[in-house]
Amino acid sequence: MSSDDTLARLTAVIDSRKPSAGGDPDKSYVARLLHKGPDAFLKKIGEEATEVVMAAKDADHGGPREKIVAEMADLWFHGMVALAHYGLSAADVVAELARREGLSGIEEKALRKVREREAE
Amino acid sequence: MSSDDTLARLTAVIDSRKPSAGGDPDKSYVARLLHKGPDAFLKKIGEEATEVVMAAKDADHGGPREKIVAEMADLWFHGMVALAHYGLSAADVVAELARREGLSGIEEKALRKVREREAE
Amino acid sequence: MSSDDTLARLTAVIDSRKPSAGGDPDKSYVARLLHKGPDAFLKKIGEEATEVVMAAKDADHGGPREKIVAEMADLWFHGMVALAHYGLSAADVVAELARREGLSGIEEKALRKVREREAE
Amino acid sequence: MSSDDTLARLTAVIDSRKPSAGGDPDKSYVARLLHKGPDAFLKKIGEEATEVVMAAKDADHGGPREKIVAEMADLWFHGMVALAHYGLSAADVVAELARREGLSGIEEKALRKVREREAE
Repeated sequence: MSSDDTLARLTAVIDSRKPSAGGDPDKSYVARLLHKGPDAFLKKIGEEATEVVMAAKDADHGGPREKIVAEMADLWFHGMVALAHYGLSAADVVAELARREGLSGIEEKALRKVREREAE
Repeated sequence: MSSDDTLARLTAVIDSRKPSAGGDPDKSYVARLLHKGPDAFLKKIGEEATEVVMAAKDADHGGPREKIVAEMADLWFHGMVALAHYGLSAADVVAELARREGLSGIEEKALRKVREREAE
Repeated sequence: MSSDDTLARLTAVIDSRKPSAGGDPDKSYVARLLHKGPDAFLKKIGEEATEVVMAAKDADHGGPREKIVAEMADLWFHGMVALAHYGLSAADVVAELARREGLSGIEEKALRKVREREAE
Repeated sequence: MSSDDTLARLTAVIDSRKPSAGGDPDKSYVARLLHKGPDAFLKKIGEEATEVVMAAKDADHGGPREKIVAEMADLWFHGMVALAHYGLSAADVVAELARREGLSGIEEKALRKVREREAE
């Protein structure tokens, strides 16, 4: 299955859990997060980002790389829940990455930011 | 362009920036991050996660949703740089999301974790 | 020197860097952060929290504990800059810690939250 | 009560919750965190830092400043739990802040880092 299919399918399921789509907070974890509102899933983004960092540090010292993948999946997943709340989706993020015209474009943007900061 | 194409293309460009592939820290932002080592890009993951949260909170109060997309793109992008360092990629993360058998599987996992925590 | 003296003295210096007190963004790092506004110092809180976590994980694997102290000092320091922006100070945070009636009170609060979550 | 007294008293209570001091994970939230090990309280640091940021953004839009104080207290408190695990304490952090010779010293350090980064 392609990334495209997976992310699109996941987006559809998350969207179906929105309160406006009838998502049931008692039956679905995502519906529960969306029902609680922004602070609930935004907090998870901070928490899961920290877990990615911890898994990576563990991997530096011999821990399993699979943990990094699992935590990054949690981070991206909760990011997708947040995107759904704001009427956005993973497709918008991927389109933004594409819009930056491949990595060279992204790097130009990143280097420009670094240079702007240096020029301060 | 599909998500698949974009993420795969981005992965290829990031991989070409690895020190082992001859990435030049003086010419490429990604090569610079990878050359500096884990703390450099892991710190960015914490920072970009915070920027996603700030953009989302701003959107709650009338700020532009585009900011959320831009910050999430930064977060996912730096996550991909970290993945590359550990010999992993976005495809592994998407495969993990798919492996959880669609959202229902992810939700079961998430709800199981919540219940395990409650059973403590 | 007591914690009290140090935190109070630090608070006074940070307050003197506020734009309203004539802090000069060209001469002072704190004045620069305060001049840039919330996103500048809030982003640092996310970044420094990540650095505390990385230093702690390194210590788990033989790294220097001094690094944890240095990063925690950076985290608390940037927290104090944020507090100053909102007309608050470390004294308010310490008073809140005291208000919770010592650790037993804090623990009761924390355990109550855990139980409320479990009762959901 | 001075900051000194509060932080020292809090340190003593947290230290009494360490497994080596006989802290009971079934009776104490702190003992539970310390018993679970680093990932448990380090994750909280990432989570609480995010909550500080959210409370601050809310305050920018009219939310209560008390929330910032409460979340910062949570952040500092969990930081103190982490410090305890590594045989450190708030006193070490405050000493580090004092060691930097008041804010001017901290600012010199911070500006030096900014300049080093700019010189790269």
